[in-house]
Amino acid sequence: MSDLWTRYQKYLAVCPTIDLTVDISRMRFDDGFFESMQARMGQAFAAMAELERGAIANPDENRMVGHYWLRNPALAPTAAIRDEITTTNARVVKFASDLHQGVIAPERASRFRNFLVIGIGGSALGPEFVASALGTSEAPMHPYFFDNTDPDGMDRTLAAIGEGLKETLTIVISKSGGTKETRNGMLEAKAAYQRAGLAFEKHAVAVTGEGSDLDKTATQGKWVATFPMWDWVGGRTSELSAVGLLPAALQGIDVEAMLAGARDADAATRVDVVADNPAALLALMWHHSGDGQGKKAMVVLPYRDKLELFSRYLQQLVMESLGKEKDLKGRVVNQGIAVYGNKGSTDQHAYVQQLRDGLNNFFVTFIRVLGERTNQSGPVFEVEPEITSGDYLEGFLLGTRQALFDNARESVTLTLREVSPRSIGVLIAIYERAVGLYASLIGINAYHQPGVEAGKKAAANVIALKARVMRALREASEPLTAPQIAERAGAPDEAETVHHLLVHLSSNRGRGVVRVFGAAVTSASAAKAALLGAQFKAE
Amino acid sequence: MSDLWTRYQKYLAVCPTIDLTVDISRMRFDDGFFESMQARMGQAFAAMAELERGAIANPDENRMVGHYWLRNPALAPTAAIRDEITTTNARVVKFASDLHQGVIAPERASRFRNFLVIGIGGSALGPEFVASALGTSEAPMHPYFFDNTDPDGMDRTLAAIGEGLKETLTIVISKSGGTKETRNGMLEAKAAYQRAGLAFEKHAVAVTGEGSDLDKTATQGKWVATFPMWDWVGGRTSELSAVGLLPAALQGIDVEAMLAGARDADAATRVDVVADNPAALLALMWHHSGDGQGKKAMVVLPYRDKLELFSRYLQQLVMESLGKEKDLKGRVVNQGIAVYGNKGSTDQHAYVQQLRDGLNNFFVTFIRVLGERTNQSGPVFEVEPEITSGDYLEGFLLGTRQALFDNARESVTLTLREVSPRSIGVLIAIYERAVGLYASLIGINAYHQPGVEAGKKAAANVIALKARVMRALREASEPLTAPQIAERAGAPDEAETVHHLLVHLSSNRGRGVVRVFGAAVTSASAAKAALLGAQFKAE
Repeated sequence: MSDLWTRYQKYLAVCPTIDLTVDISRMRFDDGFFESMQARMGQAFAAMAELERGAIANPDENRMVGHYWLRNPALAPTAAIRDEITTTNARVVKFASDLHQGVIAPERASRFRNFLVIGIGGSALGPEFVASALGTSEAPMHPYFFDNTDPDGMDRTLAAIGEGLKETLTIVISKSGGTKETRNGMLEAKAAYQRAGLAFEKHAVAVTGEGSDLDKTATQGKWVATFPMWDWVGGRTSELSAVGLLPAALQGIDVEAMLAGARDADAATRVDVVADNPAALLALMWHHSGDGQGKKAMVVLPYRDKLELFSRYLQQLVMESLGKEKDLKGRVVNQGIAVYGNKGSTDQHAYVQQLRDGLNNFFVTFIRVLGERTNQSGPVFEVEPEITSGDYLEGFLLGTRQALFDNARESVTLTLREVSPRSIGVLIAIYERAVGLYASLIGINAYHQPGVEAGKKAAANVIALKARVMRALREASEPLTAPQIAERAGAPDEAETVHHLLVHLSSNRGRGVVRVFGAAVTSASAAKAALLGAQFKAE
Repeated sequence: MSDLWTRYQKYLAVCPTIDLTVDISRMRFDDGFFESMQARMGQAFAAMAELERGAIANPDENRMVGHYWLRNPALAPTAAIRDEITTTNARVVKFASDLHQGVIAPERASRFRNFLVIGIGGSALGPEFVASALGTSEAPMHPYFFDNTDPDGMDRTLAAIGEGLKETLTIVISKSGGTKETRNGMLEAKAAYQRAGLAFEKHAVAVTGEGSDLDKTATQGKWVATFPMWDWVGGRTSELSAVGLLPAALQGIDVEAMLAGARDADAATRVDVVADNPAALLALMWHHSGDGQGKKAMVVLPYRDKLELFSRYLQQLVMESLGKEKDLKGRVVNQGIAVYGNKGSTDQHAYVQQLRDGLNNFFVTFIRVLGERTNQSGPVFEVEPEITSGDYLEGFLLGTRQALFDNARESVTLTLREVSPRSIGVLIAIYERAVGLYASLIGINAYHQPGVEAGKKAAANVIALKARVMRALREASEPLTAPQIAERAGAPDEAETVHHLLVHLSSNRGRGVVRVFGAAVTSASAAKAALLGAQFKAE
């Protein structure tokens, strides 16, 4: 244990400007590790400096990567970009204030009291994380989300909003304006306003790229406002653009403090002394743990309920950035780091059993928060003499970290003073930088996502096939099986997809497809034969 | 593609009694796989039959494993157990009805309109999953949870309840009655009632083992009611005991339908024809995918918002059951399967990039739900001619499954007709059985959790050390450093833990410890020296 205290003191990074410490003493790297990585780390710092100066850091998409400018516009490469950032941030703050004071009011209520974010991926994960970390029941506006194209999920959210729809601002977020899930959510929301006798346009705001379809819709429809997204900000690094700042400001969260936290964290992670640079330390620990190949998953355990969604936010930031087939030289590398976790000590009761005793295929990131309660004004509440619930939380963190280490399971511990707008800005910025540096270490482009296109294209094919299936069904004079319909729809190789579509459609009322049922069956084999041989007809 | 249709038809399992199909055609096992596993699968079925008859299936703890009896008491080995189950289930239903009708009412309101579950791990994950899957805004009672010992999180939940505390029933769930997180939550809740001028006991229910400390507290305090937990039900398989049934019933969820779904799923998974048995197929696919050693993570992607918490529920069920150091013969095997995932198509925008292009270290479980909306009474809402939001959801599922398969990433697809009390019972039971069968295949005890003790013990040591630290501090006449205080507290080897405790305590008002600050520092190295050399004194 005394050896560990020595190791702790040797490797602890203390970042006074951002109230953060990083403890890597429970990672089992050897003394030569940092030296062995020094040259590559130097290259990573150089690449990052280039990126910050406006180099084309995303070569596949021929784009600059400018999320660092969002919190320090002075760094942006042109006066036009600097001005756009400054203007937008000021507009966000002013807009929120106008809403809170009722200067901008809904059609049939005195004030907007809720907002509904419609977005997915980078247009939802950041706002959801920040709402969960910093939102309060006393906030001037209450957040809701459509973050999927699940009609049942949208129904549930609308039911929760209920009568409050008339005081709900809907914020549609899509850079391209072409994301189908978001488009669908917008149409479902618009229909809900219409059913309530309200004009959607008088309750709608767009956050989108200039000239996108969504931008045009918003302009033509005279929506309440439009805020820009820029092609030099990727979805997964957009939390500190209007994407995240607007929802935060509406909740009364101090967005200037979030920006300042990120700005100061950027400064602290530009330092090229690795031992003092929290992002460099994280990147190196990820490299050590997974041998630069992501062999171990990153289990994220914040010991604070408010940080529960941080791991979901990181899933996108880390996995979409680092999960790549090819490196920058075009070699097949199948890189990535899997991320999961919710919160401690809760997750200890779910899977620390496996972490301690089972597969050693992970490392833990503990996030420790020193302040026990946001509101410290009341008397200290003790659960035993001189012991608080927060002492137990701390005890479980330290105890689990020790129990894992004793069994050769590694961990990093980040310590924050509190969960605040400023510290959330710090966390976001630290991880953005760590991802960028790690990508340099392993030589990949962290800023594109070529692998998601195949699934989208396959989904579009399914939607297109559906129209042909419906036409074939309507033209048929008798009930047909899936292979028969596939044949008539000109897609004989797609019998399975046609089968899935028909089963799905015939399971829903009013979708125009009826399954012809024979005698009821109960045996598994008869039911299987009946399902696979099922005939369908148009309704 | 036609080959896939053939493979799909060959391997599809259709379970008509529980409205479930299991598609394993996108797992790349070869034709001899089932035959090679036949003997071991036969042993697994035999072991499961023994367990259901009341054998000591958890040898380390000398316990029977009886969660299957909960939904079919006739199977229980003794009349006493049968009677306890039947009586408890009936009491749950009656109690919920009495609350809904105001027959049992709070101290200072006409009716209970909320409940607060205080529990952690198996005493929270099931109720949270079911509330998220089946709860509605129109439910007769609204659920809240304390699922951690985070004081800040409890403050936030209490703030959300607000004035509603007077119509809130608190349900304290702990089998042993000794879980510290739950005990702390109970004390914090009790204090909140007291601050509101309410008697906690008149708003409290216990779900606990007979004779536990919690049972005694509830009896002595004349709490509103007590429901039993039995030693033959493990925490992670307790959702269909009073632990899960009571919160569900209070929300107006049809618990009889949940039980019936699980009972029918148990029957469907007792069938020893592997091709027809959904749980056996899952267990075999897990074995195939990870080579019986958990080499691949289980990514759980339900395409339905309501099922978003299923993966968290499964994290405990799967990882705590299977993540074991030793097999039943005492050999070190370090088993387990990592579980993560949230929901589709949302997660596609977070990490399908990595799944398709990055590390091939996972298999996906897609969960497909045929019914698009719970409420199908309105007109069909189309986002394009004849296309619904639900068509897109289906399209993204099929498209992503295809894109992954094309890149040699494997998946299983479960299809349910709808999300309902019955189908949730089915899902829970299918996975309980799959975990049990898989544990047999790899020869481990799925029903104990020896690895969690080390962390708890280490945490208890931290709490105990704190008292000694406080005494040493108070006895000191001058400010001391962490190593000095550790020495005086009789724990010279624990300087690091003492350091953490002192930093934590001195960061909170009123905790009796003050850090003596020198001149302000801004450089990282000076701040590090100041932190490590910090002196503390009693307040």
